[in-house]
Amino acid sequence: MRIGVDYYPEHWDRQLWEKDAQLMKEIGVKVVRLAEFAWCKLEPIEGQYDFKWLDDVIEIFSVRNIEIVLGTPTNTPPLWLYEKYPDAIQVNESGERQFIGIRGHRCYNSSSMRKYTKAIVEAMTERYANNKAVIGWQIDNELDATHCCCDNCTEKFRGWLKNKYSTLENINKEYGNVVWSGEYSAWSQVTAPLGGSPFLNPSYLLDYNRFASDSMVEYIDFQREIIRKNCPSQFITTNTWFTGNLPNFYDAFENLDFVSYDNYPTTNEITDEEELHSHAFHCDLMRGIKKKNFWIMEQLSGTPGCWMPMQRTPKPGMIKGYSFQAIGRGAETVVHFRWRNAIIGAEMFWHGILDHSNVKGRRFYEFAELCREVNKINEEIPDYKINNEVAILYSSDQDFAFKIQPQVEGLYYLQQLKAFHNALIRLGVGTDIINWSESLNKYKVVIAPTLYLTDDNVTTELYRFVEAGGTLILTNRTGVKNMNNVCLMEQMPSNLKECAGVVVKEYDPIGHSIHTIKDEAGKVYQCKQWCDILEPTTAKVIATYNDDFYIDEAAVTVNKYKKGNVYYLGTVFNSDYYIELLSKILDEKELPYYKKLPYGLELSVLENENGKYLMVFNNSNEIKCFEGKHEGKSIIRNELDGKSFTLEPYGIEVLQLVE
Amino acid sequence: MRIGVDYYPEHWDRQLWEKDAQLMKEIGVKVVRLAEFAWCKLEPIEGQYDFKWLDDVIEIFSVRNIEIVLGTPTNTPPLWLYEKYPDAIQVNESGERQFIGIRGHRCYNSSSMRKYTKAIVEAMTERYANNKAVIGWQIDNELDATHCCCDNCTEKFRGWLKNKYSTLENINKEYGNVVWSGEYSAWSQVTAPLGGSPFLNPSYLLDYNRFASDSMVEYIDFQREIIRKNCPSQFITTNTWFTGNLPNFYDAFENLDFVSYDNYPTTNEITDEEELHSHAFHCDLMRGIKKKNFWIMEQLSGTPGCWMPMQRTPKPGMIKGYSFQAIGRGAETVVHFRWRNAIIGAEMFWHGILDHSNVKGRRFYEFAELCREVNKINEEIPDYKINNEVAILYSSDQDFAFKIQPQVEGLYYLQQLKAFHNALIRLGVGTDIINWSESLNKYKVVIAPTLYLTDDNVTTELYRFVEAGGTLILTNRTGVKNMNNVCLMEQMPSNLKECAGVVVKEYDPIGHSIHTIKDEAGKVYQCKQWCDILEPTTAKVIATYNDDFYIDEAAVTVNKYKKGNVYYLGTVFNSDYYIELLSKILDEKELPYYKKLPYGLELSVLENENGKYLMVFNNSNEIKCFEGKHEGKSIIRNELDGKSFTLEPYGIEVLQLVE
Amino acid sequence: MRIGVDYYPEHWDRQLWEKDAQLMKEIGVKVVRLAEFAWCKLEPIEGQYDFKWLDDVIEIFSVRNIEIVLGTPTNTPPLWLYEKYPDAIQVNESGERQFIGIRGHRCYNSSSMRKYTKAIVEAMTERYANNKAVIGWQIDNELDATHCCCDNCTEKFRGWLKNKYSTLENINKEYGNVVWSGEYSAWSQVTAPLGGSPFLNPSYLLDYNRFASDSMVEYIDFQREIIRKNCPSQFITTNTWFTGNLPNFYDAFENLDFVSYDNYPTTNEITDEEELHSHAFHCDLMRGIKKKNFWIMEQLSGTPGCWMPMQRTPKPGMIKGYSFQAIGRGAETVVHFRWRNAIIGAEMFWHGILDHSNVKGRRFYEFAELCREVNKINEEIPDYKINNEVAILYSSDQDFAFKIQPQVEGLYYLQQLKAFHNALIRLGVGTDIINWSESLNKYKVVIAPTLYLTDDNVTTELYRFVEAGGTLILTNRTGVKNMNNVCLMEQMPSNLKECAGVVVKEYDPIGHSIHTIKDEAGKVYQCKQWCDILEPTTAKVIATYNDDFYIDEAAVTVNKYKKGNVYYLGTVFNSDYYIELLSKILDEKELPYYKKLPYGLELSVLENENGKYLMVFNNSNEIKCFEGKHEGKSIIRNELDGKSFTLEPYGIEVLQLVE
Repeated sequence: MRIGVDYYPEHWDRQLWEKDAQLMKEIGVKVVRLAEFAWCKLEPIEGQYDFKWLDDVIEIFSVRNIEIVLGTPTNTPPLWLYEKYPDAIQVNESGERQFIGIRGHRCYNSSSMRKYTKAIVEAMTERYANNKAVIGWQIDNELDATHCCCDNCTEKFRGWLKNKYSTLENINKEYGNVVWSGEYSAWSQVTAPLGGSPFLNPSYLLDYNRFASDSMVEYIDFQREIIRKNCPSQFITTNTWFTGNLPNFYDAFENLDFVSYDNYPTTNEITDEEELHSHAFHCDLMRGIKKKNFWIMEQLSGTPGCWMPMQRTPKPGMIKGYSFQAIGRGAETVVHFRWRNAIIGAEMFWHGILDHSNVKGRRFYEFAELCREVNKINEEIPDYKINNEVAILYSSDQDFAFKIQPQVEGLYYLQQLKAFHNALIRLGVGTDIINWSESLNKYKVVIAPTLYLTDDNVTTELYRFVEAGGTLILTNRTGVKNMNNVCLMEQMPSNLKECAGVVVKEYDPIGHSIHTIKDEAGKVYQCKQWCDILEPTTAKVIATYNDDFYIDEAAVTVNKYKKGNVYYLGTVFNSDYYIELLSKILDEKELPYYKKLPYGLELSVLENENGKYLMVFNNSNEIKCFEGKHEGKSIIRNELDGKSFTLEPYGIEVLQLVE
Repeated sequence: MRIGVDYYPEHWDRQLWEKDAQLMKEIGVKVVRLAEFAWCKLEPIEGQYDFKWLDDVIEIFSVRNIEIVLGTPTNTPPLWLYEKYPDAIQVNESGERQFIGIRGHRCYNSSSMRKYTKAIVEAMTERYANNKAVIGWQIDNELDATHCCCDNCTEKFRGWLKNKYSTLENINKEYGNVVWSGEYSAWSQVTAPLGGSPFLNPSYLLDYNRFASDSMVEYIDFQREIIRKNCPSQFITTNTWFTGNLPNFYDAFENLDFVSYDNYPTTNEITDEEELHSHAFHCDLMRGIKKKNFWIMEQLSGTPGCWMPMQRTPKPGMIKGYSFQAIGRGAETVVHFRWRNAIIGAEMFWHGILDHSNVKGRRFYEFAELCREVNKINEEIPDYKINNEVAILYSSDQDFAFKIQPQVEGLYYLQQLKAFHNALIRLGVGTDIINWSESLNKYKVVIAPTLYLTDDNVTTELYRFVEAGGTLILTNRTGVKNMNNVCLMEQMPSNLKECAGVVVKEYDPIGHSIHTIKDEAGKVYQCKQWCDILEPTTAKVIATYNDDFYIDEAAVTVNKYKKGNVYYLGTVFNSDYYIELLSKILDEKELPYYKKLPYGLELSVLENENGKYLMVFNNSNEIKCFEGKHEGKSIIRNELDGKSFTLEPYGIEVLQLVE
Repeated sequence: MRIGVDYYPEHWDRQLWEKDAQLMKEIGVKVVRLAEFAWCKLEPIEGQYDFKWLDDVIEIFSVRNIEIVLGTPTNTPPLWLYEKYPDAIQVNESGERQFIGIRGHRCYNSSSMRKYTKAIVEAMTERYANNKAVIGWQIDNELDATHCCCDNCTEKFRGWLKNKYSTLENINKEYGNVVWSGEYSAWSQVTAPLGGSPFLNPSYLLDYNRFASDSMVEYIDFQREIIRKNCPSQFITTNTWFTGNLPNFYDAFENLDFVSYDNYPTTNEITDEEELHSHAFHCDLMRGIKKKNFWIMEQLSGTPGCWMPMQRTPKPGMIKGYSFQAIGRGAETVVHFRWRNAIIGAEMFWHGILDHSNVKGRRFYEFAELCREVNKINEEIPDYKINNEVAILYSSDQDFAFKIQPQVEGLYYLQQLKAFHNALIRLGVGTDIINWSESLNKYKVVIAPTLYLTDDNVTTELYRFVEAGGTLILTNRTGVKNMNNVCLMEQMPSNLKECAGVVVKEYDPIGHSIHTIKDEAGKVYQCKQWCDILEPTTAKVIATYNDDFYIDEAAVTVNKYKKGNVYYLGTVFNSDYYIELLSKILDEKELPYYKKLPYGLELSVLENENGKYLMVFNNSNEIKCFEGKHEGKSIIRNELDGKSFTLEPYGIEVLQLVE
């Protein structure tokens, strides 16, 4: 494990380069990322490359044994390219070409963009393929599944559809285009989703999302091939993030060496325990993409702000704590954004480790301490893995589909997952978040929230898992549709109703109204957003509704199916019920958990050949006391040796567990 | 009276057609509406019609004695038409042609649209003119007075203006175009309201609204003539609704056989008694358009939702209750939308009677009960009329004008009418809502809220009505403008100040501030939104303001004028004052009403040659007790015979009154 | 001092002209403004002028000794001009030409617009140059620094940049265009800020604002030269206002004779003492532009409303009171908008002195009383000056820059100034608001809030001022940037840190969170929006933070520097702390103030050769009692003679002070 920084030599006077590199070396920075926005400096005039400055920068870091990741600069083509080839720029849903002067507005499917991408990536990779200091490549920057509506994208989308459905007749059938007389009678009638109306056909909108994701993935692959050819020994990744148009993360990283992620935990203090805020969720999701450790390519170092007003400055401990939080979830390398605030350009108030003044401040000293501690721990735990027995299934298709047709006020796909993840954190239980199409062999408990779209392979694997003795948790809005976003003509949860032993008789989209349920012990819990009214076939009712016309009807059931158990939750709860229910399930499965972990403490277990290490992170602004289950020896603080200790706000402790 | 359903055979496998029809027959459905969005199935290729499938569907219903209404499918032209004739599509206020893939975006004034409308309507009507099962036609679907800004509309608007004003000089004068140097010096300067700025001339904006309504009406008439020519014995209607661009309802239905309306009462429970929610208002307005009974062409059957999040599911009783509510207001036929939820397309979460699963559920059984009860009552009351002695005047021009220039936060034209209507419902008094230009002969009390624009014929009729002994109620914002949306250079209420016996000295647009008035008995009531400070000439003051600089000034007056009385309400009240004032007036006019009708109970009296029938609807989620004035005999429940009874939430009772 | 009205003869029947003029004369109106929107009446056909009607109007006023100001009508060119020369119309940030039918959408840089501007202004000025009744000219109407994005503006902007920076290389360097590869390699890549993205380079956006202001100023100058040539003895001004795109007021009026301002105080009653509402601030700012008295060209006369809902009607006293408030701040002439409500066009509910009915009402009689009192006072105080010893520095560049990059929720540049101004009003202290580049010689206390951008000349003058013994007050967000909107690589307050004796160690943008500070006496005050954590070098700490991780760190400091004192306020307060701190500073500087002035009372001192006059305005809706410091004699009410008196709501008193 190690710490890096994002550095923009092109923003600074040359005289600062050596000073900055020297200071990084002194505090223990091990890696820098460079050049991902520097196209206009690398190719100021079409075909005329200038790598000299970058050579110099690399040399400065190289002699200090700081390793280098280079970004391909394709996120921001130079203005001469846009001017000469306007088709390189995206077209928005109004049919208008985006205006220049911003970033990330290149079209993945533009042939001009491809041509110039190839040229710059060829030139860079040829130059640095054999540079020992350059360890790897970041493709572009924060790519997303942009819904470009240009003619190139439209034409390519038609091809994508032909490939998937062969004929317009098939498309009309699969999409149900007969509704509102929307049947295509010629390919020319197929367009990008111009107008952006939510009245557009939901099957078509879901496919356009898939096409947009595929276009992004293809563009990544286009670059990857060039890089791999020239640089066989350097790694290739790209830095992903959570944006409006999420790609399919699993496709995006399939051919890349590992996942990288840009991680900006909120700097606002959390006061509502029901707020599903933990960036641990995102890190667990990132680790799950390739089921191995990953990088943070950009990590919180100061308050964000720029075009939007600034947020709170990170509180003491946050910079260190959130970096460790990521490490504890599998982030082997954490690169902080950025070394120093920009003094120029639109991002000048997106704060880095050093302020505009270049005077060392509180954040710098905390970062230096982070480097020191990480380097120390790295001696003990140079590599590690994270193994969990509980998994949550994620599907980018579900996420797409939920955005197209919001089901009720307040109900969001990711929130459904986060609610379970949050409860598991509160219980101190490590969780994998994996693609819903994964094999579930290694897990004892699988949580599959909101399987709204239905995939037959997934269904088969879920049955296999339950039959073999696994515990499966299902929720409301499962089995609603087929993979074309068309409703199933079946009672929910459709294919899963046999193993769930229950059908949905009716539902009430209650939105922000608060209702209650009562469990078997007569204890009452709040529920919200959605109420499935359940009719058990073989399942046992473990909670009933407590009000409205469905009072006393089933709200939560469990079904013994072959060797396994299937829970069905017909409504959405606050954390109290999830914690209660999961505790019971963990007991059944004899999985260890913490009954009274103080709110805010987040645990993770790192394993390597030397043994197991428990990381405890205090994700709160109060001092918290941890009462451990096993003896452990701190590998940060020599004096600490035992089960219990206190943690400062956002404080961290790593214990080598005594088996 | 009878119940129908909206059915979309083109959305379903053929094998379902017979099953669906058979089930409808079994539960007592009497009519289906078909085909209003099916153009692409009826004319898949230009000029090549396919009626075979529709023949089959009609036959299936026909043999089961279920009658059929056909919609002309012009709301959603097929894509080949849009592709070949882009001028068939509306242009928005930014001057951009709408994008395809949605619905209702055809331009009424497009010659291509007219040509293809003629062809499809000719073909359909020729085919089904002599089909005995086909009883009538619905023109298009949910037409509105769209403000299309295409070149065709612009050119036609110029012609409309020439016809109305002859010369640009006249327009300049009538509109006051001199303001901001807006005088036209050439016809080419006259455009559609491109840019959509609220700074545009209000006289012009009102005329564009009228032109848009006229365009819609002309398009209806264009279709009506074709249908009438081919189908002399079938009825012709169209289904109207409340939308952003309301047409003139009276013009729209002038040449049609009866009014149809799409009725979706809210499924949310009402908790605030001041919320002016009752869909009874809309039904009364619909009955008033042609002063006779009407149809509901689409009636609530499940939660709406689609592009927007779903609302609450209808509570038990709502599906039946709201259907009866409409019947009680003159809806002879209520067609429920829709038989079964769509499984495809953008409307798949706009819920019907049957769910996606096609399994009979709570809503189905309630609907079946509705059919049974309606069929039973229909034996007793096969036809009926509704006669009232109180009327509220409605004017689409006032509604237009109020939207162009919102007078103050919180004051809306329709709310002004609803406040009175709501108070009359609370008093159990039946009310007609009629065009302001109607004869008032049959009424004893006429409420004319907010006669903002002034029409001389209306004024004459109001004087005639009062002189003959009628009681007229006027409100604030009366006599502000002439019919060109130009302010009158007179003290309000202008032409009506003689009969009102009062002038408006000054006004204070108080918006959401709460003020109070005091009546003659010293009782204090809240008022809001607007305060006219009144100066009585001959009127008597019956309430004064109780605060601000106009404390003790007149707020409400009554004037004895010839044989009649004219009330003037200078401000806006909560229901308590309206109920108090209307009680007094009803007493004066010796009109019967209920002093203590429980909140939520809605009464209506249906008359036919056999006598009078009292319908009581419990529009609330609580059990309510009704204490009648007259003996009555239930024609639903044989056991019920007397004055008093309780009603379940959303329950209904129909009593034959003993005279 | 005198009162005028805005009059639109072109809106009214000719027969009203004499009646209106006669009534104005009778009540004591001294001046009218005419014709600023009348282009289509003055030049109905290209090149054919019609001045006859205006001659007649001028004659009608002239014979009654009412003086006339003529507006050049260029705000609203006639439709024939737009039709023939579309380039006369602005293009918005989407690249679309604005649609016609509104106002103020002419492009200052259009050559067609310039050509026709020249023609109409030449014609008007030639005609009325020697008319004795015409005393001056208003150029256009409510000009603003519109961000037109047309080709003409783009081309001109390129020239503006060439003139400022000579080369693209310099622009790239000064703007930091390297960020996101935004370097220009050809002039054709320089555009107007199309797309309007807040992600655009902030240095560029600031320059476009400056260019837009310069374009406006150049257009003013273009007209001024024509008028001055023809009308050497008539004054020239323009009426400015507060709009979204504020120009540089100092540039705008540099070559004009005096400032005019359109003044619409809110008619809503103020209930929150923290609301920074006083229009006194705007008047003081206007007086400061040319450091002399000014005109109000449009003054509140009734509730505004039109395209937006109407506000409250002015309460009794407001029309008179707010007119006097302006006079007391240096408005020698107050022209009320407007004589009578329009009955036509988009502004018909922007209320004037007379209502649509033309019947004299409450507002008319109050206005007549205003005329009478002003005319009476004018006999005593025909001319006057206002001299203050406290100044607040204003900079339009700061205002621009703050809008481009909002620093934190709730923090606005003008609010920072208003907070101090408001506290000074509460202390009864007169304040100048002056351009930040002014000489500070005459002041004892200078408040320089938020010197975000850093100008070297301003810094020099501030040091000079402090060295000479002045007291300077600085705040958070000072010394952040250079004049190109690029961050300084220095600790804040940068150039001012020597005299402030303090540096900003770190900051926390707290936004709407409420924090507290503690002063030397241990008294606790709330603070908000922004917390600079201060490190004094030579300064003394006078308040510390009272919570969060910077508890006990310095929040407010004072530094003795040479003969002066420099205060630094690291955070933003409610009025209590500003009042407390300013009282202390006024005591130190031996400047008089009021310790217990009732909330709402606003004082100003008018001086002329006869002595000093104290104006007291009760800017509240309650009766207030004033306890004066000096004997005075009322020049309105003969009976009043002494120190203390009560004022009606919005009441006014003018005392000749006995020295």
